[in-house]
This record gives sequence, C-alpha cells and structure tokens, in this order.
Amino acid sequence: MVTAASNSPAGNLETIASVGENESLRRTISRLNKGDWELVGPGDDSAVIRAEHGSFVVTTDTLVQDHDFRLDWSTWFDLGWKAIASNLSDVAAMGARPTVLVVAVVCPTSTLVADLEAFADGLREACLSLSPGTAVVGGDLASGSQVVISVTAHGDLEGRAPVVRTGANPGDILAVAGTLGQAACGLDLLASGNTDAVSAWDEWVSVQRRPQPPLAAGIAAAEAGATSMLDISDGLAKDASRIAKASGVTVQIQSAALFGFEARLEGAAQSLSLANPHLIEMGEPNLAAEQYCRKWVLTGGEDHSLLATFPAGTVLPRGFKSIGVILEAQADRPLLLDDAPINPDGWDSVTG
Amino acid sequence: MVTAASNSPAGNLETIASVGENESLRRTISRLNKGDWELVGPGDDSAVIRAEHGSFVVTTDTLVQDHDFRLDWSTWFDLGWKAIASNLSDVAAMGARPTVLVVAVVCPTSTLVADLEAFADGLREACLSLSPGTAVVGGDLASGSQVVISVTAHGDLEGRAPVVRTGANPGDILAVAGTLGQAACGLDLLASGNTDAVSAWDEWVSVQRRPQPPLAAGIAAAEAGATSMLDISDGLAKDASRIAKASGVTVQIQSAALFGFEARLEGAAQSLSLANPHLIEMGEPNLAAEQYCRKWVLTGGEDHSLLATFPAGTVLPRGFKSIGVILEAQADRPLLLDDAPINPDGWDSVTG
Repeated sequence: MVTAASNSPAGNLETIASVGENESLRRTISRLNKGDWELVGPGDDSAVIRAEHGSFVVTTDTLVQDHDFRLDWSTWFDLGWKAIASNLSDVAAMGARPTVLVVAVVCPTSTLVADLEAFADGLREACLSLSPGTAVVGGDLASGSQVVISVTAHGDLEGRAPVVRTGANPGDILAVAGTLGQAACGLDLLASGNTDAVSAWDEWVSVQRRPQPPLAAGIAAAEAGATSMLDISDGLAKDASRIAKASGVTVQIQSAALFGFEARLEGAAQSLSLANPHLIEMGEPNLAAEQYCRKWVLTGGEDHSLLATFPAGTVLPRGFKSIGVILEAQADRPLLLDDAPINPDGWDSVTG
Repeated sequence: MVTAASNSPAGNLETIASVGENESLRRTISRLNKGDWELVGPGDDSAVIRAEHGSFVVTTDTLVQDHDFRLDWSTWFDLGWKAIASNLSDVAAMGARPTVLVVAVVCPTSTLVADLEAFADGLREACLSLSPGTAVVGGDLASGSQVVISVTAHGDLEGRAPVVRTGANPGDILAVAGTLGQAACGLDLLASGNTDAVSAWDEWVSVQRRPQPPLAAGIAAAEAGATSMLDISDGLAKDASRIAKASGVTVQIQSAALFGFEARLEGAAQSLSLANPHLIEMGEPNLAAEQYCRKWVLTGGEDHSLLATFPAGTVLPRGFKSIGVILEAQADRPLLLDDAPINPDGWDSVTG
C-alpha cells in the first residue's frame, strides 16, 4: 500500500475527544488566513461578508471518506487543499471571483487535533495559493463514524452576468482551461500500489491530491463572452454532455485536440499497463497504455478544469484551448467524439 | 421503542442506488419552493443570490445521525424541518432576514428516494412556515455509512448593523425570545420509551422534532438596539456564558424569571420522575420533577430560541421576556443564577 506522508506529528497525541469541540475548533480556526471579504469573521453565530455588486454566488460540495478520498492516500493537509480547490472551481465556473468559504467537518472523536490543524493549514495554503484574498470564515465540527467534509463556497460576479450551462449555441467553440486526466491518472497510480510508478509520476499523483483549478480563467472567460461554462468535476465526457442537455445542442469533441493531453500521460500509462497487481487482484482486465490515456482524459474529473463555449471567432482568453465545436442538436446523439457518438459516462458520486 | 411515523411510503422502494445520484437529486430538488432571492437557482455549478445591501450573512451547521438525531425518533420530514430551523436561527441571531440555504446530504445508497423526497418536503414546509420567501437554492448528495446533513444558511441585514456577541454592557437587560427546555423535555420523553408520556406531552416532542425558532424576533431585537444576541443552541447556561466571555461581563440569570418556563414542563417531568425505565436500565439516577424542569430550562438547547441583551430601559420588542441582567465582570464568576455561580454545562457536539 502506498501511504501518504505522516498524518500524525509525533509528540502530540491529543484527540478531539480529549480536547473537546470548542478548543479543537479554536485551534483550527486560529490557523486560517484572514481574507479580504469578511466584515464579521469566525466566532459568532454567522459571518458577515461584503457583497458590493448586488449579488453573491454560492455552491456546496461534500467529500466523503473512502468515496472521495482515502486517508492512506491523502494527508489531512491534502484534504484541506482539495476541499478548497474543488469548491472554488464551481465558483469560477460561473465567471465569479471566489470570496469566502465555510467548512463543516465530521470525524471520529479519536481524530488527532494535530490532524485537524494540518487540515486547516491545507485550507489556508490553498486559499493563499489559488485565490489570494479568499478565506474560510466559519466552520463546524461534529463527531461521526466516517470523515465527511462539507464546504460551501461563495463568489462575487463584480457586475458581470453569470455564465450558466444553458447558453451554448451551434457554431460555438468548445474550449478547456486547465489539465485533463491528470488527477485520474494519479488515482490509478495510487490504486496500483506500484510505489515505483507513484514516485516516477508523482506530478500526476500531486494533481489528484492537490488540484490546481485555473480559477482566473473563469473570470477571463466571462469577460471574453463565454456563452456557457462549467467545472469538469465528473469527467470531460459527462460534463460536456451536461452542456449539451442544458443548452439543447450536440457537443462535438475533436480527438486530435485531446492528443496533447493524452501524450503527457503516456509514460504513467505504460507503467500501469505493464503490470498492475491491483487490477489483477481485483480480477479486472488491464488496459493498453493508449486506453488508459483516453479513459483518463475523457472521464477523469478531479482536475477541476473549466469547460466553456465561446462564439465562433472569439480570441480565446489565456489558458483556454479549443477542443471541439457546438452543433445543432442531433437526435439521441448529444455527444460526439469526432463523428462517433460516445457514452458520457463519468463518475456518479453515489453509484460510482 | 417509540417510533416516528412511517418513514417509507408503501409501494415505492426505489433507493438512491437503484435510481442514481442525479435522478435522486432531481426528484428532491423538484419538491423545493422557489424563494424571493435567487437570480440563478439550482442546476448550475453555483446559485446566484440577490444581496442589495452590500453584504450577506452566512452560517453553517451539521446534523449527524445518532449524535444529533435518530431515524427511529424523527421522520425524514422532521429532519428537513430541523435542518432549516436550526440554521435560520443562527441567521436571525445576527439580526438578519434569512434568504437562502444550500443543503448537502450524505446517506447510505440503500436510502429510499421516497425518504429523500420527504426530507425535501420538510425543507420546503419549514421555509414556508418559518420564513416565507426563504428557500433552498442548491444541494449535494453523496453516499456514506451514516446520515450527515450539512446546511449553510444566508441572510440579509437590510442595512442594519449585525448584532454580535461582544456588545453586552453592565446594566443591560438579559432577555429571551422563544421557548426554553421544551425540546430537551421532548428528547427525554422519547428516550424514556414511555409511549403514554410521549402521547400525553406530544407538544414538547414536537418541539424536539420540529423546532419553531422566533426568527422575526431577531430582526426586531436588532431594530430595538440589542447590544448582543445569539441563538440558544447549546442551552441557556452555556450560551449565556458565551455572551459573558465574549463581552467581558458577568451574566446574572434570575431564577424567578425561569419559573414560567419550568412550570409548563412539570406534567411531563412528573411522568418521567415517576418511572423512567430507560434511566433505570442505563443505571442512571432518576430526577425529581423539579430537577428535570430546571435541567431542561437551563441546559436544553434545541428550542433554538434567541438570547439577547438590551440597554436598561429598552421597551423589549414583542416576543422577548426579561430573564436577568448584565453585571460588571466578576473574577471566575461569569454566570450567576441569582447570587450563586453556576456551571455553564450544556451540550458539546463532540464530547456530548
């Protein structure tokens, strides 16, 4: 089993049970950064947040132990980072600037306070690195059998119209900002138990643990006139089919545009293709290297990149790469890879 | 065991696993009311909410199965109601008008879709009943071993200054809006397993299952010049001591002012005092009726009433009742019941 860096600093074995909720929360909150948006911060019944442009954007998402993460594959710092990254990308996908978050954590009472502190460090560093000025302004801590991290993120449209999913038009360019398939590759590397491969391709493992969503590209897309946009959280195919459904169009992805994304992952794919004891043990068929790459790029979701459509002729904003076009709706063919319909299968957070 | 009304309508045994996350979410969201505040509602990466007064209020809270609720004591409708009520009271405690909520649910894949629908009905009816115009604008559904309900609620101060915990001054009146001890009485009735007592005193059981926080009183308190305010979620004693600590004062509760709250619960207390097979089984000492009443009123938290301080001479707004005064801080005596210091013990959501 590949294990994450030590979660438990030696010498501090205090648990939430021994310290109590209030003190655990106090120590955790004291490690957070102070952002640019709070009028009243943590410590009262509610926080009060600036919203000078007449509206705010809000989204919520939950990470569940052994469904969305494993404590032997991610440190608590990683979890804090990922909780921020995955939620801020939903804010950016509206064309908004991330402002504040609230974070609720459920964990066993045997959880070390040091782990919660590392989680708070991850929250802070992700805010500072991905979206300076953004901060966690409130939280909640409760005990339960399984770790559950529930985040609500907010943003400010700064006067821009929100970019929703329903606005794609035939003729539009389909474009992506950010990486594709890297987080899924990292996950398969971790699952393989192949420590040599994990070391050799630690860049993709790092994207899985600490995604770097292209948040500024969301604002740039809105300013460039994006007609629709979303955060790729369930895979390019599934999320592209969401634009197709919401906008009443067919989305055509051009496979040639994916080659660059796939090529970067080939080395890791070859390592896994050669020998994957995890898959053999599970009785699952192994894939050829090119199949791994295609699967990761088409169905891997956790890079949290942005998928957007722009009117034909738009000079794409920095960070976006054209990967297809929007067509008139074709009956029963919402999603095409070149000329072939494809199944928009990705990840369903309940059925897997 | 006292059981709640049937959670599972006959004839619809579809589970989240059989229906999938997206369809389960769609059916659930379709039962929600549409509020007055959304510019973009459910279905996109984020919702967009009106905030015309330059700020918004935000708070988050989590309900965990077998810690904060039991599925054999509450229906899914009750859980939806309670999730709304307990969070909106935190918004009201800032002096704000509740606007929108987002709700994340984690539950086993074996959960019936009909149960989720009943949960959504509870969310809707609580919004319509407690705070018309308020609505759930987004959510998340994930699978896990234990039911976890995580809610983030928002409010609008409408130009008022937020009422925080730090502003109580010596000489201020201490006042409460709403009931005290009724939810705790209801919980002890359910725990007793005494079905006759549960039936006889179902009004208090109902407060436990579907609290009715006095939300309008929060705005009225802000308008009347309240110097501090909070939502009594962990019991009068514990929450009063929070005002004492945050404001650097001593809070004196007058026992004579509590008699009215206690007297209403005497009948239920007598039922439990006579014979409480649950406590006998647990090896815990039974209490005299008056001890039950005092415990419920001083340490029972789930009525979600509002505790506020007002300058001496203030005509208390409708719904508030004076229960004490604020004194200069006394060393090691932050909280007094008449002239005796009391331990601000309430409910710690981790240590119990």
